[in-house]
Amino acid sequence: MGKRPTISDVAVAAGVSTGTASKALNGVGRLHPETRQAVLDAAAALGFIHRQRGGSVMGSRSYTVGLLTTDSFSRFASPIMLGVEDALGAGQISVLLADGRGDAIREQHHVQTFLARRVDAIIVTGRRSEPRPPIGKNLPVPVCYVLSRSQRCEDLSIVIDDEQGARLAISHLVSLGRKRVAYVTGPEKHLSARLRQSGTVAELRKHGLKPVEHPAVWGEWSEAWGRQAAGILQRSGAVFDAVFCGSDQIARGMVEQLQYLGRRVPEDVSVVGFDDWDVIALASRPALTTVDPQLADLGRIAAGLILRSLAGERLSGLAKHDCRLVVRDSTSLVAE
Amino acid sequence: MGKRPTISDVAVAAGVSTGTASKALNGVGRLHPETRQAVLDAAAALGFIHRQRGGSVMGSRSYTVGLLTTDSFSRFASPIMLGVEDALGAGQISVLLADGRGDAIREQHHVQTFLARRVDAIIVTGRRSEPRPPIGKNLPVPVCYVLSRSQRCEDLSIVIDDEQGARLAISHLVSLGRKRVAYVTGPEKHLSARLRQSGTVAELRKHGLKPVEHPAVWGEWSEAWGRQAAGILQRSGAVFDAVFCGSDQIARGMVEQLQYLGRRVPEDVSVVGFDDWDVIALASRPALTTVDPQLADLGRIAAGLILRSLAGERLSGLAKHDCRLVVRDSTSLVAE
Repeated sequence: MGKRPTISDVAVAAGVSTGTASKALNGVGRLHPETRQAVLDAAAALGFIHRQRGGSVMGSRSYTVGLLTTDSFSRFASPIMLGVEDALGAGQISVLLADGRGDAIREQHHVQTFLARRVDAIIVTGRRSEPRPPIGKNLPVPVCYVLSRSQRCEDLSIVIDDEQGARLAISHLVSLGRKRVAYVTGPEKHLSARLRQSGTVAELRKHGLKPVEHPAVWGEWSEAWGRQAAGILQRSGAVFDAVFCGSDQIARGMVEQLQYLGRRVPEDVSVVGFDDWDVIALASRPALTTVDPQLADLGRIAAGLILRSLAGERLSGLAKHDCRLVVRDSTSLVAE
Repeated sequence: MGKRPTISDVAVAAGVSTGTASKALNGVGRLHPETRQAVLDAAAALGFIHRQRGGSVMGSRSYTVGLLTTDSFSRFASPIMLGVEDALGAGQISVLLADGRGDAIREQHHVQTFLARRVDAIIVTGRRSEPRPPIGKNLPVPVCYVLSRSQRCEDLSIVIDDEQGARLAISHLVSLGRKRVAYVTGPEKHLSARLRQSGTVAELRKHGLKPVEHPAVWGEWSEAWGRQAAGILQRSGAVFDAVFCGSDQIARGMVEQLQYLGRRVPEDVSVVGFDDWDVIALASRPALTTVDPQLADLGRIAAGLILRSLAGERLSGLAKHDCRLVVRDSTSLVAE
């Protein structure tokens, strides 16, 4: 306890010579993949932090950044990756890719590999907005969490501003004269769903309004839920002239089912989504007014924060990036 | 002409010293990003191939593979990347990421950067099935093209078997007793659309049938086109009891509009899509029977081919990977 593990400790734990451990950690030489794996696993288990190649050939930077996605290359991670690659590529920095697949051991292995490859920095992303455990303490390189914030508030995280996004949607609906706004969203356990709700409530309150009470607020992120929620809303007897939905998929289902039930969209009920996911928002009839979280921006900003960290700035804490409203045909002025 | 460019040629072309050129090509030292860029551009323009770090510290392999996407991390590239990372990660190989964005100069720059970073191999992917120009001749590392095949037939490419996928769809429809099958798809200039057509025609012929003739075969990859095509088909007077659509988006639009026009799906008209894209196929009502191109498999297979190349095998030519049929509720037995 307390003593920092050495490369000898790693070698002993992996059952290999120190030379072999060194080769494995440096990613050089001819080793069996199993041997390399055993050494990296031992290093991860011991918390051994290794910086590759101390020789004079290399400068102080490797011009690589590790990009760790926690849950595959989802439609959320993809635009962020694009933004990161775009911003770093201009600075001649290459992006090393790894997918943790929501598995903590796999993730630690990737972090160890990144460090062994002497990345200059690590960017961590994932689709969930829930605070996630940090990838390590006192890592020798800057780390930036994107979309998924770190549980440790002194870590550097950048996320979308869900509350501000919801405020945009509500303020748009109110400006159209809509006063009876219902909120329908995904699972209550999702922070993003709760933040969008609190933004909704706060913005309505600013205009002296309250959200329409109904039994279909929380559900799941799907069109099927949007359709069901429309039915529940109608049958509940709630009076509403607008619905703000927590995702474009929910909004599309909502629009379809409201129409099926005889309500005109946008005239009788205006609907706003969230995501600006083109294949959903544009295929909906009418096309969805929605909130764009600008994920590629988020990736570019994360890359910019990393570059500033590499230039010596000490950055920490949670940054929130604004969403923007995209107006299409699912919202309109209320009839006089 | 004919003489291989040296690092001095690169330095002269970039207007820097040989030492600076070396630093830039090796990705080391403290240089202005503009200087690094100028050197890499000069190297690319001259066709200078540089392998980083000749020193004794490094073994013969860097345990990195460059992954070049030609057109961003689309929903096609993402599962392929997943498969590649999954298969290579197990062998302790890291993936370096670059996005060419359909720009040849940007792409060459990335290739040059990959080589400067001494990648063991390069995987090239992109959404289009059209043969694409090779990324270079006589590159010092194995290259595998995935999804987008290389124009040069001696290059190693792996693609989905569009014709086989179409045959699966048609054979399924015929086995359900459907004999009047219409084909509706994306732009005729897309090879995948044409191959799926020839597979359709060939499989129907095998059963003594012909595709239903109609004026809405070629269009675009969208739900809107699926809806329009349904209208054109109906108005043309063509008699059909099944439609094979070139994508799930087209199929979803087709299903919706056929229902709107009073045709029951799957009873009157059975519809098959292509892609098995869950957000479209599962949101459709009924859920779509579709052809799954198994893109993650494609990525894993490409990674496997790369590993075999690294083990010394000489691989070349075009490999096609089978699609599989996913049966859901948009197809049913024809009524007796």
